[in-house]
Amino acid sequence: MTDNACATKRSSDPDPAPVIGELRSLLGDRIKTDEDIRESHAGDASYHKPMLPDAVVFPECNGEVSKIVKLCARYRTPVVPYGTGTAVEGGIVAVRGGVCIDLSRMKRVLRIGEADLDATVEAGVTRKQLNRHLEEAFTGLYFPVDPGADASLGGMAATRASGSAAVGYGTMRENVLGLTAILADGSIIQAGGRARKSSAGYDLAHLFVGSEGTLGVITEVTLRLARVPDAVSAAVCAFPDISSAVDAVLEMTSAGIEMARIELLDDVQMGAINAYSGFDYRVAPTLFFEFHGSESSVAERVAAARPVADRHGGEDFRRANGQRERDRLWQARYDAYYASQTMRPGSVGYVTDVCVPVSRLADCIHRTKKELKASTLIAPLFGHVGDGNFHVVFLIDPDRPEELAEAREFGERIVEFALEMGGTCTGEHGIGMGKLAALEQEHGEGVKVMRAIKKALDPHNIMNPGKVVEI
Amino acid sequence: MTDNACATKRSSDPDPAPVIGELRSLLGDRIKTDEDIRESHAGDASYHKPMLPDAVVFPECNGEVSKIVKLCARYRTPVVPYGTGTAVEGGIVAVRGGVCIDLSRMKRVLRIGEADLDATVEAGVTRKQLNRHLEEAFTGLYFPVDPGADASLGGMAATRASGSAAVGYGTMRENVLGLTAILADGSIIQAGGRARKSSAGYDLAHLFVGSEGTLGVITEVTLRLARVPDAVSAAVCAFPDISSAVDAVLEMTSAGIEMARIELLDDVQMGAINAYSGFDYRVAPTLFFEFHGSESSVAERVAAARPVADRHGGEDFRRANGQRERDRLWQARYDAYYASQTMRPGSVGYVTDVCVPVSRLADCIHRTKKELKASTLIAPLFGHVGDGNFHVVFLIDPDRPEELAEAREFGERIVEFALEMGGTCTGEHGIGMGKLAALEQEHGEGVKVMRAIKKALDPHNIMNPGKVVEI
Repeated sequence: MTDNACATKRSSDPDPAPVIGELRSLLGDRIKTDEDIRESHAGDASYHKPMLPDAVVFPECNGEVSKIVKLCARYRTPVVPYGTGTAVEGGIVAVRGGVCIDLSRMKRVLRIGEADLDATVEAGVTRKQLNRHLEEAFTGLYFPVDPGADASLGGMAATRASGSAAVGYGTMRENVLGLTAILADGSIIQAGGRARKSSAGYDLAHLFVGSEGTLGVITEVTLRLARVPDAVSAAVCAFPDISSAVDAVLEMTSAGIEMARIELLDDVQMGAINAYSGFDYRVAPTLFFEFHGSESSVAERVAAARPVADRHGGEDFRRANGQRERDRLWQARYDAYYASQTMRPGSVGYVTDVCVPVSRLADCIHRTKKELKASTLIAPLFGHVGDGNFHVVFLIDPDRPEELAEAREFGERIVEFALEMGGTCTGEHGIGMGKLAALEQEHGEGVKVMRAIKKALDPHNIMNPGKVVEI
Repeated sequence: MTDNACATKRSSDPDPAPVIGELRSLLGDRIKTDEDIRESHAGDASYHKPMLPDAVVFPECNGEVSKIVKLCARYRTPVVPYGTGTAVEGGIVAVRGGVCIDLSRMKRVLRIGEADLDATVEAGVTRKQLNRHLEEAFTGLYFPVDPGADASLGGMAATRASGSAAVGYGTMRENVLGLTAILADGSIIQAGGRARKSSAGYDLAHLFVGSEGTLGVITEVTLRLARVPDAVSAAVCAFPDISSAVDAVLEMTSAGIEMARIELLDDVQMGAINAYSGFDYRVAPTLFFEFHGSESSVAERVAAARPVADRHGGEDFRRANGQRERDRLWQARYDAYYASQTMRPGSVGYVTDVCVPVSRLADCIHRTKKELKASTLIAPLFGHVGDGNFHVVFLIDPDRPEELAEAREFGERIVEFALEMGGTCTGEHGIGMGKLAALEQEHGEGVKVMRAIKKALDPHNIMNPGKVVEI
């Protein structure tokens, strides 16, 4: 089921056999057409209906990706880049079939710049793999962008991912310094670079970050790293209602209390987390905090945050200072999406992702919760509130299309609220195939510019067609 | 004198009289064709030879800019956006004549978001004007990007400017959240927005930031603001040689000592500053520091930085804590470019602007200084060393083309050093008309992509032709 019927496989689409034959000569057994492998590359972690690519290829270097894309270009065969399949807007669904480029064999850490706090990795390296590498090499550095899932860094760049640490460290937008991309004609370009700043021409690195495979295949990324902080302190605090929790966040951010993470979970979500992760937290709107810095600055920040929480009715302010306790806490937060799904076994999640100016967050959540009361769907709410970003997960029965329709309609309403408030239809999940209409609503004339760029760089629309913008 | 003869006014360029006539009907006396006004818009603060636009227009709103561009598009007349003319790569030189759009009448502060730490301003608002506005409204906020000159914020966005505070607060790349631009067909687009993060489609805001008027006219910008820090401390410290100073910076940044500014001035530059600003600093390589934060964190940072400076032979570590003393110090730093010009009255500056990974900075400066010894030109060196960005100002006699040739050749060599070291040909000044060849050298295949984008958005090449990329 796609949002866009035009994007689905058409009878005029070319027969994939010839390009598959040529790719087999190039890649040997690193092209797969087995049903099970095509199925495992057909859908992501969301409600979007999987659609099979005609083949899955496993290149090992830029040159191979370039050759693959050139062959696909010659046959006008769609190209769908694939990282770990952990995204949620159907970005990797092969709506017109074609060749799925699985980048999992491009998993080398190419370079660590300890003095410059940067690293260059191949696109298939996952964030946990990079962080293990940095730890094992005793660099004292890590890559802080943390979407929860152990996503590939290429995929994270392609979707402009972020997650819980964005309030402290920024998103992929701020943390990708440069990248290598293979364009629709097979050419290999380097965008951005290692210098901390540059005014050299158009900012192609930022153009490719968030382009979701529609302008090219990202094969390498140069990332900004952070120092492992000297001190870390986490805390959990329950609030009488969501508005109080959000007001506390607003007051903390306005007061300049630097936080590495600041997450909100509503009562429904807290119940799910308790059940899924074996916690005994109060089933109430709750903030999860994390502070990073020197011992003294962390102490200063916690001391500044706590009275703000108190003033807004925060209760049961529990600190979690040990690494294990913190890991368990954050794992619970990361598992929120999966925890919520256990509230309704067999369900799939339809997840919203708006982001508004922080000053409007309470209002946006309030309107959302008010409408949720009228809905029959189970729908926990959680989010990266320091950035103004929150999610509602509608747990829908995949066999009941009326539930998807209800969730979708609701999701569209939340997008309308957010846009009215100067926000965006997606804080971190991307457009994929799920939000083409919302993008038009948000950017209007700007989408024409996006389309012009897409046409200029991919005139035959072979790069992940049906995603982000239609041409 | 341009780098690119093809860009200069051609006999085939259309007669400007008809478009000027239509613009006069639209704008009344807000179109000027007087020689003196055209002259005052013909060149910037650099060695690039001024070239006159055919007319200068002074629009007051987006709608007027749109109409102006539409008229120019109809007549295929070049459009050159103009802020304050304080840049140094000839970005506003009217190499093919045409209509200069002076944005100085678009100087309204449209909105301040105190809780969200953002502001939306028209492009002609200068950074000092915005900061005065923020101070007079007692917001406790300010806009930290500081290129020295009181440039317009639209112009700063267009050139992806930065300056001395970039190490602490980022450049225009990090601080422009959104913008309004008028495209070559007169359409008005909004790019980016007020949400702190977004994955909604291609990142057009970043595409326009740094596009130097070649893709459209930036008419409004939404900026991220910073809190005026509770405590500020500045310091000046002399070093026995440049390598020691740069090594100290590298050690400080690697150790995670957060600095708001960290600037290097060589002995030649210090001599010029003493003479120009009435200081009695030691004529030796010198670092200017500034630390921002809470009282305790600033004290912590100064205490951490000082022994590092000592270890690298730093002497005469002088703190400047009072506002007046600090203002005087930084004014002296900002005046470095002008101070250097007084070393050779009547000279103009040819200023280089490479930026390398910080770990390579000492090496790059060392190679540069070594070659400088063999040159006959006076050439002070200074830079934003926390970012790896430094400038050499060759003071050349405008009537001696051989001096410009020597400076140019030298500048090209410094670019080669920087590119070999993974750096960029311009950290903050832009490409303008001065660095077209360097851009090709740096980005190779990437320039083809830039050209494709330029062609897609400005097929008749009317937007600031001859700058950034030639199509």
